[in-house]
Amino acid sequence: MKQLSVALVGGGFMGKAHSLAYSLAPIAGDVGAQVSKRVLVDADATTARTLASQLGWESSSGDWREVVERDDIDIVDICTPPQFHREIALAALAAGKHVFCEKPLANTVAEAVEMRDAAQRAGVVAQIGFNYRHSPAIEFARLLLDRGQLGTPLQFRASYLQEGGFNANPNLWRAKRSTGGSGFVGDVGSHIIDTAEYLFGDIARVCGLARTSSEDGWMPESERLATDALDEAGVWIAEFANGALGSFAVNRLSSGHKNQILFGFDASKAAVEFDWNQRDEFRVSYVDGPADHMGFQTIHMNTEHPNGWWRLAGIGSGYAEVSAIQFQKFLRAIVSGVRAEPDFDQGLHVQQVVEAVLDSAAVGGWVDVPSRLPVPAGAR
Amino acid sequence: MKQLSVALVGGGFMGKAHSLAYSLAPIAGDVGAQVSKRVLVDADATTARTLASQLGWESSSGDWREVVERDDIDIVDICTPPQFHREIALAALAAGKHVFCEKPLANTVAEAVEMRDAAQRAGVVAQIGFNYRHSPAIEFARLLLDRGQLGTPLQFRASYLQEGGFNANPNLWRAKRSTGGSGFVGDVGSHIIDTAEYLFGDIARVCGLARTSSEDGWMPESERLATDALDEAGVWIAEFANGALGSFAVNRLSSGHKNQILFGFDASKAAVEFDWNQRDEFRVSYVDGPADHMGFQTIHMNTEHPNGWWRLAGIGSGYAEVSAIQFQKFLRAIVSGVRAEPDFDQGLHVQQVVEAVLDSAAVGGWVDVPSRLPVPAGAR
Amino acid sequence: MKQLSVALVGGGFMGKAHSLAYSLAPIAGDVGAQVSKRVLVDADATTARTLASQLGWESSSGDWREVVERDDIDIVDICTPPQFHREIALAALAAGKHVFCEKPLANTVAEAVEMRDAAQRAGVVAQIGFNYRHSPAIEFARLLLDRGQLGTPLQFRASYLQEGGFNANPNLWRAKRSTGGSGFVGDVGSHIIDTAEYLFGDIARVCGLARTSSEDGWMPESERLATDALDEAGVWIAEFANGALGSFAVNRLSSGHKNQILFGFDASKAAVEFDWNQRDEFRVSYVDGPADHMGFQTIHMNTEHPNGWWRLAGIGSGYAEVSAIQFQKFLRAIVSGVRAEPDFDQGLHVQQVVEAVLDSAAVGGWVDVPSRLPVPAGAR
Amino acid sequence: MKQLSVALVGGGFMGKAHSLAYSLAPIAGDVGAQVSKRVLVDADATTARTLASQLGWESSSGDWREVVERDDIDIVDICTPPQFHREIALAALAAGKHVFCEKPLANTVAEAVEMRDAAQRAGVVAQIGFNYRHSPAIEFARLLLDRGQLGTPLQFRASYLQEGGFNANPNLWRAKRSTGGSGFVGDVGSHIIDTAEYLFGDIARVCGLARTSSEDGWMPESERLATDALDEAGVWIAEFANGALGSFAVNRLSSGHKNQILFGFDASKAAVEFDWNQRDEFRVSYVDGPADHMGFQTIHMNTEHPNGWWRLAGIGSGYAEVSAIQFQKFLRAIVSGVRAEPDFDQGLHVQQVVEAVLDSAAVGGWVDVPSRLPVPAGAR
Repeated sequence: MKQLSVALVGGGFMGKAHSLAYSLAPIAGDVGAQVSKRVLVDADATTARTLASQLGWESSSGDWREVVERDDIDIVDICTPPQFHREIALAALAAGKHVFCEKPLANTVAEAVEMRDAAQRAGVVAQIGFNYRHSPAIEFARLLLDRGQLGTPLQFRASYLQEGGFNANPNLWRAKRSTGGSGFVGDVGSHIIDTAEYLFGDIARVCGLARTSSEDGWMPESERLATDALDEAGVWIAEFANGALGSFAVNRLSSGHKNQILFGFDASKAAVEFDWNQRDEFRVSYVDGPADHMGFQTIHMNTEHPNGWWRLAGIGSGYAEVSAIQFQKFLRAIVSGVRAEPDFDQGLHVQQVVEAVLDSAAVGGWVDVPSRLPVPAGAR
Repeated sequence: MKQLSVALVGGGFMGKAHSLAYSLAPIAGDVGAQVSKRVLVDADATTARTLASQLGWESSSGDWREVVERDDIDIVDICTPPQFHREIALAALAAGKHVFCEKPLANTVAEAVEMRDAAQRAGVVAQIGFNYRHSPAIEFARLLLDRGQLGTPLQFRASYLQEGGFNANPNLWRAKRSTGGSGFVGDVGSHIIDTAEYLFGDIARVCGLARTSSEDGWMPESERLATDALDEAGVWIAEFANGALGSFAVNRLSSGHKNQILFGFDASKAAVEFDWNQRDEFRVSYVDGPADHMGFQTIHMNTEHPNGWWRLAGIGSGYAEVSAIQFQKFLRAIVSGVRAEPDFDQGLHVQQVVEAVLDSAAVGGWVDVPSRLPVPAGAR
Repeated sequence: MKQLSVALVGGGFMGKAHSLAYSLAPIAGDVGAQVSKRVLVDADATTARTLASQLGWESSSGDWREVVERDDIDIVDICTPPQFHREIALAALAAGKHVFCEKPLANTVAEAVEMRDAAQRAGVVAQIGFNYRHSPAIEFARLLLDRGQLGTPLQFRASYLQEGGFNANPNLWRAKRSTGGSGFVGDVGSHIIDTAEYLFGDIARVCGLARTSSEDGWMPESERLATDALDEAGVWIAEFANGALGSFAVNRLSSGHKNQILFGFDASKAAVEFDWNQRDEFRVSYVDGPADHMGFQTIHMNTEHPNGWWRLAGIGSGYAEVSAIQFQKFLRAIVSGVRAEPDFDQGLHVQQVVEAVLDSAAVGGWVDVPSRLPVPAGAR
Repeated sequence: MKQLSVALVGGGFMGKAHSLAYSLAPIAGDVGAQVSKRVLVDADATTARTLASQLGWESSSGDWREVVERDDIDIVDICTPPQFHREIALAALAAGKHVFCEKPLANTVAEAVEMRDAAQRAGVVAQIGFNYRHSPAIEFARLLLDRGQLGTPLQFRASYLQEGGFNANPNLWRAKRSTGGSGFVGDVGSHIIDTAEYLFGDIARVCGLARTSSEDGWMPESERLATDALDEAGVWIAEFANGALGSFAVNRLSSGHKNQILFGFDASKAAVEFDWNQRDEFRVSYVDGPADHMGFQTIHMNTEHPNGWWRLAGIGSGYAEVSAIQFQKFLRAIVSGVRAEPDFDQGLHVQQVVEAVLDSAAVGGWVDVPSRLPVPAGAR
């Protein structure tokens, strides 16, 4: 059996989530390989050592440059803040490693293009961490669309709301424009853009508004939480390439929402609704139902659905289970040589939509999103 | 006790709803007047006679022109299709009658301006039928905002979805551009615009998209339901005058939704969610709750809330009860001489937002909504 | 058209609810008769006069004995506290009037037997006010059972919870054993027993427990709300005559529940769930659904369902609408001469179940519920 | 750091769940020990080998007797069918191992007593696998009760419903009386009994009914799914030692319910509701809330609550996360030498309640549940 050794760069929240997922994934289902959690890398070598022990990694390192070139490493998994993604990914790809990169792919489209191009040249598996789309219910909704069971896409509505903006220190480097980081449209908006494109196809143009509590016109001065903050809330509408309509909202100053991802869409034969906080089910209503049995059906995920692994999905799945599904797909793509989904090209396209929303908010009016380049022949 | 006699023009769905409400309103709570359901008017005198008997009116007529001038009529209630609103309202106002007019106020802003001006000149009570805003839960949310308990408005999200577009005959005159009528943005979008303005204040500008199944770019030709149809779906974003963000979606081709009105809003001290289909409650989450008791509270309406009449609101209220509240306010405004809410000026402003959305959809990009005129001195 | 004149005895909460319903019922749908709200009766003549004016009755009276014998009265509607039901009903039945009686039919089985027998002898329409069962969703569930679409009844679970026990004055005469009144098992438990029997057939035996805050063994002395109180909470299990299992709970010291009626049942081909607070829909799950579409469907009530009157049921119905349906059935039974449902015999059987639960709670162990007597030949 | 080596006996569904949990637990939070998944045991040595590789165990064995005596084993984890629990547990306890045993503790009370006594004699940590009670929301509800914030327990209502009875082969050995196994009251009823006792204290007596599709009086012969089947459905009421009332229902022929565990309880200061399928939150309503803010609050779990490990609990937890919490507690109890909860004595008491329910169903009427023996001095 193939042996796959992983180097994880970055031991924050995402590093911990990925550590769990690498342990869960092969137990939950055959991935066709033995996976070794070989080395955890953190800028600080002491932190790396502590985290490696705690999160179940064989060894640790304070130097990602050295690690990504090691012969005993097959996979480089990037969990750093986004401003470091490009450099690490390019080095890992140059060394021929398979790369898993957390979202957003980068902080700018220019960086993301470079990363996408390098991945295509390298011919390795390069996947981006849009984890929520791997929910079995979302994957099944896509399957129903592919089968034509739901009809033509008509309207997509999504929101991603959190209350963290009230509690977190709004002046930490990550939330500030001057010290880097990505705003809320890029941070969580990217997830619902990815899900929308996964289900409805590419977004062609957007018009949006964004707000931050550090500028005039939103929070009164007496209530402001931050100075120099990146965008904290946004709303945008979208036109998909196929003509469907989209409506999106994000806000990190939304009390009561720990982590609420809601979407609903209408198609010509059915409508669908999904709530991440009830991820073991989704709701569908078919237009052609019996006249006295109209209304949404709550479909609970079971072994009949994608990744209905060992019934757990039916008994109650969480963030860790969905994360494990994400890595099962990544590992199987490496083993089988098929293209990973979502890949860096998808990561780039989402980045282009995010940038278009922010441009639109800055200049006013509609902004077109570039079409995807044709996938080069032979790419995977 | 004051005696108020009503003439109802139009015996369709809304005529029936108003007939019920006039019977319910005075039983449910003292309105300070004896109300007589004097005459029901329909263009066809025979239909009028049948409907009058069925819906509990003392008499009937086939001629609204004659009726609105009668001395024994105090109130003219207009339930006709929107293209007739202007003419009937102007005649009734000229005759000094109090006027209740169903929404949308008119099919164009020009007509609506004329009606608003006539109402202000007449000095009578002129109310528009945005019935949903009278839900005790919505009125209480407004009260909490007025008290400052929820903080500064930040983001408003609303959708109004129906599935009627799949079932109704899409080629009837009302749904068609060539034979008049108002599209779905005006028909149901006006309700969520009114609610948004009731809670967050005036909308200053919008950018939107609208779609109809009779044109290219949305439904494939093989699936088209209609020819020459008015807009059936729309999405728009809005900037409120106070800087808050708005996000709106309507669709009458949304399977599974009989009549779904959802809204949620974030303010700097709390967030609120409301679902018309659970109208006896709403949900609020306060930012400053105890750290181990964070999350939305479902507040059920009871006698402590506005219009918590005789506990029925707590036991389970429906469309008819909320409609009765609407008419209690109308009747009390007449008796007491206070200004009715929402009046024709509000109806006009909503109409201006609707027109701005449709203009934006037609031309692309942001469209400003006119500010309200100052209320003339002495107006009520 | 037939003329039906009503005398209403008792102007409390229920008197008001019935007043509304008599106004709503004929507007909402043809009942085949002209209904006159002729006279409102209250023990106090002055109160009666005020209430008659407020609730829309033509006249008032302080003497029910005189009224129930008047020739110009066709219907006697009894909304008094339960200890007066028997005397008024017997007099009205003896005078040949149709009788509508609020639940519980009486405070004892002996009284209820007398009333049922008198109704059968009189050959009039005698209906009892189990209003909730008239919800279109519940009536449709019964229809599905009758059609065999749901299979054999297996298990019924119901609860009726209120928080009123914390707020009301627990020492008022009605809540006290020494001054009459009915306890909570009879007051609200009777509704879920009626619904259970409507759907699953007769209950054959029960075993239960009941509690009051005025006795030892439940609330500690320092927290007691009442002295000499009737039962405030109960749980019981039941065996239906057809072998199905039942589980029931009531509590009026249940914080957060304004008026919560929940039931669910399993049958051999489907399961059903209903929540009064979402009365415009119910949920059904069929055993034989497609393997990847398993789960509950939320069926929203529309014009395809029983009493889907003029679409309002689909737009949002409340207590008043369901009450109007109840009286439409009552009035139509009078006009057509068919048997009313639920009649006094059903009221008696529910009373027998209530008494069996309380006996079981007092003595411990199972108590059989008497079988229904065969309906006498010629009864309606 | 302490080294703890585990032998897992039984590689079915539960063996897989435990395999995941041992990997998750130490990553998710410090348990004070290094945990080794040393050996997986299955009756069939080949199966054991395959499973060990798949589920991440260092080695495998076909002989549990040999394994439980090995010096390099600290923990024996029993995931076999219940008829083998006693023998394996007694051997492991005799060898001085810490024991984790899946529920139900045994198939009879006699066996369970033997196991509890052996555990107490051995002085090791002996925990039973009632995993659901470890949900952070349930643990927090218990904390609120302990603090007195919710008042005196009044009424507990719980149901556990599954639809598996329609799909599974009802004639497999496990579901049949003649070949051993435990019925549905013991299988899933034990979970809600454990939760009830965890929150409300010991159950003192019960009265119940049970049904199986293989006997007369429930399913008609034409619809029967099984022959010789154990109980598949049951309802029971309970009196707690503190006087509170309990109501319980289980059914494995309940369409639409993949795995539904619902409970609600009323206490004198608050009511609580919990739904396993929304396990990241629970609902509480306090009696003394402001009059215009009455109703249930949905409290979402966060880092302020028990086991709010690394925020995942807030982002979305599943079966695997709650299972990991269970094993974190087990491992920490071993490291610290404190008593585990729930231990074998609790497992025994739940078994006694199950047996009392089934006795009651067989003989009719109330059956007392034995009081717990006093914990012997020095026990842990």
